[in-house]
Amino acid sequence: MRAELVAVGTELLLGQIVDTHSAFLSRELSELGIDVYFHTSVGDNRERLREVVRQAVSRSDLVIFTGGLGPTEDDLTKETVAEVLGVPLVEHPPSVAVLERMFSDRGLSVPASNYKQALMFEGGTVFANPNGTAPGAAVTVRGTTCVLLPGPPTELYPMYRAEVRPFLMSIRPSEEVVVSKVLRFYGIGESHLMERIDERIRNQDNPTLAPLAKEGEVTLRLTAKAADRKRALDMIEPVKKAILRSVGRYVYGEDEKTLEKAVVRALVRRGKTMALAESCTGGGLARMVTSVPGSSAAFSGGIVCYTHAVKEHQLGVPSNILKSRGAVSMEAAKALAEGASHRIGADYGIGVTGVAGPDPAEGKPVGLVYVGLAERGRPTRVHRLFLSGSREKIQIRAAKHALFILLERLKKGEATHEVI
Amino acid sequence: MRAELVAVGTELLLGQIVDTHSAFLSRELSELGIDVYFHTSVGDNRERLREVVRQAVSRSDLVIFTGGLGPTEDDLTKETVAEVLGVPLVEHPPSVAVLERMFSDRGLSVPASNYKQALMFEGGTVFANPNGTAPGAAVTVRGTTCVLLPGPPTELYPMYRAEVRPFLMSIRPSEEVVVSKVLRFYGIGESHLMERIDERIRNQDNPTLAPLAKEGEVTLRLTAKAADRKRALDMIEPVKKAILRSVGRYVYGEDEKTLEKAVVRALVRRGKTMALAESCTGGGLARMVTSVPGSSAAFSGGIVCYTHAVKEHQLGVPSNILKSRGAVSMEAAKALAEGASHRIGADYGIGVTGVAGPDPAEGKPVGLVYVGLAERGRPTRVHRLFLSGSREKIQIRAAKHALFILLERLKKGEATHEVI
Repeated sequence: MRAELVAVGTELLLGQIVDTHSAFLSRELSELGIDVYFHTSVGDNRERLREVVRQAVSRSDLVIFTGGLGPTEDDLTKETVAEVLGVPLVEHPPSVAVLERMFSDRGLSVPASNYKQALMFEGGTVFANPNGTAPGAAVTVRGTTCVLLPGPPTELYPMYRAEVRPFLMSIRPSEEVVVSKVLRFYGIGESHLMERIDERIRNQDNPTLAPLAKEGEVTLRLTAKAADRKRALDMIEPVKKAILRSVGRYVYGEDEKTLEKAVVRALVRRGKTMALAESCTGGGLARMVTSVPGSSAAFSGGIVCYTHAVKEHQLGVPSNILKSRGAVSMEAAKALAEGASHRIGADYGIGVTGVAGPDPAEGKPVGLVYVGLAERGRPTRVHRLFLSGSREKIQIRAAKHALFILLERLKKGEATHEVI
Repeated sequence: MRAELVAVGTELLLGQIVDTHSAFLSRELSELGIDVYFHTSVGDNRERLREVVRQAVSRSDLVIFTGGLGPTEDDLTKETVAEVLGVPLVEHPPSVAVLERMFSDRGLSVPASNYKQALMFEGGTVFANPNGTAPGAAVTVRGTTCVLLPGPPTELYPMYRAEVRPFLMSIRPSEEVVVSKVLRFYGIGESHLMERIDERIRNQDNPTLAPLAKEGEVTLRLTAKAADRKRALDMIEPVKKAILRSVGRYVYGEDEKTLEKAVVRALVRRGKTMALAESCTGGGLARMVTSVPGSSAAFSGGIVCYTHAVKEHQLGVPSNILKSRGAVSMEAAKALAEGASHRIGADYGIGVTGVAGPDPAEGKPVGLVYVGLAERGRPTRVHRLFLSGSREKIQIRAAKHALFILLERLKKGEATHEVI
C-alpha cells in the first residue's frame, strides 16, 4: 500500500510552524506496514492545493491530509478534496449536534462559518473530535482513500489513536500485522545503548530495532511483522530478553509507560506518597506528575520556591545554608527534599535546585543541578548533575532525573548504578 | 520568484527525523521576498527523486534541496539533479584539496567513496563547507536555479548564512521585502475574531491577514510586501489600527510576546510580584511563568496543593469551606488566591481549582474551573470557567486564563469584558 502525506497551511510555507505531524504519521503508518513515499506541504491556496490533491490521488492508494479543516474561508482541504474526487459534501447531523452543544455549553450560538465543519463526504467516514470543532473525515474513490485530519496537535493525536488507527488497520490490504514493543531507558545515551547490544540482534530485519533519543531518555522500538499478533510477539520476546540481559538495568518502563506514570504507579502500589520542592524546574516536575490521571493518590503537593524567603519559610531551609552555600548547593537540595517531605507531609520528598540559565547564578554555571531525595527513616541523598542545552531542556532533564532516582529507590531501595 | 523546497532522505519518510530545515529556509526566503509554494520530502530512491526533481524544475524558479549529498550510494541528490537538468558533473579541484586536507588532518586517507563529493555542476556555483565533507552547489538551467545543501544542521546553517543567503540575494529579481507583524489574542475564538474584522480588510492581499488558533489563543499575522522595510511597516500600520479598533480589547501582545512573557514584563515594570496556589493545573502555571528567563524578579513562588491537608495547612483554606463547599468551589478559589498572596508573600495571588478530568470529582463536571485573583488592598475576584477537551487542554487553558486575568488587572485595574 503506497501512501503519502499532505500538510496544508500557509504557516508551514512561511516557516512559522514545523511540520511534525508528517513525522508522527509516518512512524504510525510504518508500524502498520504501510509505506510512505512522499510528504508535501502546500499553502491555503485553492489552485495549488488542487494541483497537489490531483497528483497525490493519481499516484497513491492512501493520502492523509492534515490541516485546513477550520471554519474560515482559508480552510480549503475538505472542499478541494471533494471537488477533485467529485464527491458531494453533505450535512452530517451528528456533527451539527456536537457543534451546537459545544457552543451552547459556553453560552454561545454557533458562528455561521462553523457550520461548514459539519459538512462531510457523502458515503464517507467521520472521525469524532472531542477536542475541537473540526471532525476528521475519510472517503474512498477509485481505489484511493483520502483521510482528512485537523491540524492542532491536541485534536489530531487523540483522534488518530481513537479512530483513525483502527480505520487504517481495517483498510490495509495485507493480513500481515506489524507489532511493536517499546523499551524505555534512562541513564544511558543512544550510542552507548546500541554499542552494548549484540551486533547480530542490532542488524536483524525482523524484528527490527529503532532507537530514538528524546530529552535525556532513549526509547528502543522492537518491530516484528508476522501473520498474526501472537506470532509477532513470539518473535519479539527472545530479542527483548537478550536486550534486557545486556542493558536491562537502564530500562524503566515499556510501551506507553512514561517515567511519570511509572513513578505514580510504583507509589500507588506501595501506598506511598511524594512531595516536591522545586526551584530551577519551576513547577515542571509537579506538572509532569500531575499529568498522570489518578496522581492525586500518590502526590501530596509541591512548592515552587524561587525566592530565598519561600525556601526558608515554607520549606525550612536554614538561612545560614542559603547565605554560606547558596541556594544552588548540595546542602540546600538536602534541606529542600527534607522540607518537602516534612512540611507537606509525604513519605518521599524531592528537592531540585540548580541553574537552568540562560545566565549563570551565584557564580555557578548553567546546567549545574542538585537533586535531593528524602525518605522517612533513611538518610537523604543528593545527586549532582551537569546538564547541557537550553533552559527548557535543562528543566526537563532535571525533572526526569528526579523521577528516575525516586523510581530506583522505590524499586530497589537505592539507585544502583551510575548514569552514563 | 516562485520557490519550492525538497528534503531528501528515507529517514524523513519513516518519521525518524522531523524536517526542520524546510521551516528554517522558508523563514529565510520569506524575508528575502521569495515566495515558497511547496515543501516536498522524498526518500533516497532514484526513481521517485527523479519524479520530484522533474516536477519542481518545471514549475518553480528556485528549488532548494537539502540532504543526499553524503558519500554513500544512497546519496543521490546531486547525481539526479544533474541527470534531469542535463548538466555534467566535473571534478572541482579546490573541493578535492579540502577533502584531502580534512582527512589528512585526522591522519587518514580519503575513502574512495568521498571523492564523489568533490564532483560539481559544470558552470555552477560551489558553497564551501567548513563543517563537513559535502560542499553545497547551485546551477541555473533554463531559468530555474537549483541549490543543493547538506542535510546535517551543523553544516547547513553556517553554509546558508555565509554563502547561500548572499547568493540568493544576488539572484532574486526584485528588491522587494516581506515584513510580518503578529497580533496575539486571548478570550475570543478564531471565527468570532475574523467575523468582527471588516471584510475589506480581511480579504485584501497586501497586507494579508492569517489567523492561527492554538490552545485557547489566536494569533493574527499581518504580512506586507514593499520595496523596503519601512514602507512595508507603513502599509501594516493602518490595517493594524483598524483591527485594534474592532477587536483590540482581546489583544494581549504582539510578535514573540507570549502571555507568560507579557505577565512577567508587566509585573517587573511595575515592581510587583505574584504567587500561585495551583490545584487542578498541577504546577503547569508555575512552569509557564518560570519558562520566561528573568521571571524570578516577578515570581515569588507557588504551591501545588493536591490534597486538602496542603490547602489547609500551607495555604490557610478554612477546613469548613473544604467540607461544606468542596475544594472545587468559588470559596476555595478565593481562599487559595489569598493564601498564595499572604503565605508566600506577593502583591498578587492566583488560586486555581477545578476538575481537569478524566473523571468528575466532588460530583462536579470535568472542565469546571475556578480562578481566583487576590490583590493586596482590593477585594478578591473569582472567575468560573467551563472548559472542554482533554485533561492537558483543560490544564493549559485554565493556566492561560489565569495569566490573562492577571494581565488585564495589571493593565486596566480590572478585567473589563466577558471572555467569549
